[in-house]
Amino acid sequence: MDPIKNYIETNKDRFLDELFGLIRIPSISSENEHKGDMVKTAQYVVDQLLKAGVDKAEIMPTTGHPVVYGEKTADPAKPTILVYGHYDVMPVDPLNLWDSPPFEPEIRDGKIFARGAVDDKGQLFMQVKAFEYLLSANQLQFNVKWLIEGEEEMGSPALAKWLPNHTELLKADLILVSDTSMIAIDTPSITVGLRGLAYMEVEVTGPDKDLHSGLYGGAVANPANILAKMIASLHDENNHITIPGFYDDVLTLTIEERRDMARAPFNLEEYKKKLNIKTTLCEKGFTVNECTGIRPSLDVNGIWSGYTGEGSKTVLPSKAFAKISMRLVPHQEPHKIAELFARHFEAIAPASVKVKVTEHHGGFPYVAPTDTAAYRAASKAYEAVYGIKPIPVRSGGSIPIISTFEQVLGIKSILMGFGLDTDAAHSPNENYHLECFYKGIETIIWFYKFYSGELEG
Amino acid sequence: MDPIKNYIETNKDRFLDELFGLIRIPSISSENEHKGDMVKTAQYVVDQLLKAGVDKAEIMPTTGHPVVYGEKTADPAKPTILVYGHYDVMPVDPLNLWDSPPFEPEIRDGKIFARGAVDDKGQLFMQVKAFEYLLSANQLQFNVKWLIEGEEEMGSPALAKWLPNHTELLKADLILVSDTSMIAIDTPSITVGLRGLAYMEVEVTGPDKDLHSGLYGGAVANPANILAKMIASLHDENNHITIPGFYDDVLTLTIEERRDMARAPFNLEEYKKKLNIKTTLCEKGFTVNECTGIRPSLDVNGIWSGYTGEGSKTVLPSKAFAKISMRLVPHQEPHKIAELFARHFEAIAPASVKVKVTEHHGGFPYVAPTDTAAYRAASKAYEAVYGIKPIPVRSGGSIPIISTFEQVLGIKSILMGFGLDTDAAHSPNENYHLECFYKGIETIIWFYKFYSGELEG
Repeated sequence: MDPIKNYIETNKDRFLDELFGLIRIPSISSENEHKGDMVKTAQYVVDQLLKAGVDKAEIMPTTGHPVVYGEKTADPAKPTILVYGHYDVMPVDPLNLWDSPPFEPEIRDGKIFARGAVDDKGQLFMQVKAFEYLLSANQLQFNVKWLIEGEEEMGSPALAKWLPNHTELLKADLILVSDTSMIAIDTPSITVGLRGLAYMEVEVTGPDKDLHSGLYGGAVANPANILAKMIASLHDENNHITIPGFYDDVLTLTIEERRDMARAPFNLEEYKKKLNIKTTLCEKGFTVNECTGIRPSLDVNGIWSGYTGEGSKTVLPSKAFAKISMRLVPHQEPHKIAELFARHFEAIAPASVKVKVTEHHGGFPYVAPTDTAAYRAASKAYEAVYGIKPIPVRSGGSIPIISTFEQVLGIKSILMGFGLDTDAAHSPNENYHLECFYKGIETIIWFYKFYSGELEG
Repeated sequence: MDPIKNYIETNKDRFLDELFGLIRIPSISSENEHKGDMVKTAQYVVDQLLKAGVDKAEIMPTTGHPVVYGEKTADPAKPTILVYGHYDVMPVDPLNLWDSPPFEPEIRDGKIFARGAVDDKGQLFMQVKAFEYLLSANQLQFNVKWLIEGEEEMGSPALAKWLPNHTELLKADLILVSDTSMIAIDTPSITVGLRGLAYMEVEVTGPDKDLHSGLYGGAVANPANILAKMIASLHDENNHITIPGFYDDVLTLTIEERRDMARAPFNLEEYKKKLNIKTTLCEKGFTVNECTGIRPSLDVNGIWSGYTGEGSKTVLPSKAFAKISMRLVPHQEPHKIAELFARHFEAIAPASVKVKVTEHHGGFPYVAPTDTAAYRAASKAYEAVYGIKPIPVRSGGSIPIISTFEQVLGIKSILMGFGLDTDAAHSPNENYHLECFYKGIETIIWFYKFYSGELEG
């Protein structure tokens, strides 16, 4: 057996024990009640890094949840890899849809079920364990820095502010990230594009208090009906977004680029079957992968108004709310899009209601080149472990901080993610295949080796 | 001082004590956790009726919450009045908008603040106290039956089933009800029309689990966006309801009838000011009072989907829900309208989602004649207490059981309500003017007296 596989096999129970300890702390960054848990989780990460062999690791304060910084200097003359990950997780509601408690990791069918299993505690842990192996085998050819934050699921607002004051500390040649997915368990891929994000919250107010829907219905504007009308108008019959100027900065791909994209394996019937839907709903003129990869989108992430309990209540609500986010592609700018949205939403509000629009976090889209030493090394690493070359893909998701890294630190990232579409990240019953976890560790170890070779050769 | 006023003045603290005891029991009929409270409340009503002097009063089981039945036989040869009211109340959420706890009645600014203060515990109590006075003064010229139910706020489903088996028990010449409003504190009115109701719940399902809005947004139908589009399409640009066949049975009033209606005092500026709205939103071609009185309406009473907590969550939800009710006018039939709605809602659903429509309670619209002894007696009673003739009005609200009484028992109702538009019935900070409460008792007493005179000729 090769020494890497042997090391993983020998230590796999310990790996899981350590990971489960991390998962058990409910580090939901967007919920105030978990503020204490965030610090506990950061400390757990510090302890794990120290255990893995870094020279130092510490919790560093930000304006929000703290970041964990660590470093291992192998040889000051060698290049430096900055490993980025996040210790925070998404909220868990609706709780009743979980088959096991979200913060009590459980292994079923060869998968870890828990919030954070894949996003990103499990994937972050692969990085720690790959590093641990290289160090224990005395094969670490790089200096390694660690930056593990606690607000990724909120769009990294505090880290974005913290970065400009720590550019010296974070000096590196490459950022290495495991926080994305691959095409299938036997079809590796490397994410070379991420969509940006603009996330809005809207409040529509009709009368200044809830009214009896019998006494007033028909004469007084109902903010829930109005909000529905406003949201409905944001897409036209071709599923184009109707906000004026929304598409102005969208990069149009060439026919050749689109043809290349279409080479990625994709089975529409399987896609629909997996989601249990009869048909997809795409922007006219674009395929599924184009709609999630190279085209922007607009989704209601939450909507609420009036009576939502059991039975009936005949209320004409005073207010209606929605959370609406837009995924962006090069060269759309999140803040500009947020402003276009706000201006448009206010403009289409009828005189019978008042509208308030606020902006949550945003993030720039990101595109990574494939003609670099890092991409080539990653490609060889996947091939060594999976037996086939990985496919470069543009993901529909967003990791806003990745484009911020490029802007502020001037460093490109390589996105080696081992999640799967079926992992239910952000959803009830989030899970992570143990096979992905172990192969991920192996692939990352090989990446370090090939990257060192690429740089030398 | 006249003996009626004197009796009220002497006993007013006791009246409030007894009423507050009734209000303190949280009899929310639509919430299962209050099942025990419903029985407690019914028993409290029984005790109060016995205390007021009925011959008998008892709790009678139904398929739902029990009804209270009571009777006082003055003289079998005399006519019988059946007093109807309800001991159940609406849910109280959003609780944070209440200035004092909903089930701890508090007097501020000459008003009782509490859930049920006006709807209908306070108004029901006026009936009990007027009866108590007539009996104590030995002036009761009628046999009086009592039917106090516990599901009015749910549309009286159990009572509607119970009625056909109790027609003999409920035999009466007139039904007397205090569960409506008047135009203003110094402008009495008698409700001569009520709208009917069809109440629906819809569930729209996209993918079979919540998805990551980045990975799937733009390619997979978002049920919240789709629901918004479907709701938006239920009204056209003139605020007409677009459900095919919806208006087929709507009774068109003559120009003369509409002219009569327009005589009721109404100040649009005050109406808008009271609700803090810039403009009303009426069906094209109809006035505010017409839109709530003689035209049907359609309102979202509740809508919910996705993430509704603080902060942001980038979820593409699996399901979106809405509660949608329609107020009906003569001769629309609730079940027929519910079917038209369901058929239409299913028809407009795009192939990318699944739709489930369920029907909650409904009720027929009701119109009362004004050329009857009961109406004349009520009119004189108001005039005796308020100094001016009451105005007959068509209310936009619904009391579905009133039309059921007419259909099943063959008895007309007289609706002597003393609520005000500002009472916030069904809303946070529901309240009831003490002045309305005391004048209501006085007016009901006078009604009994004048009605006896009218019947004698």
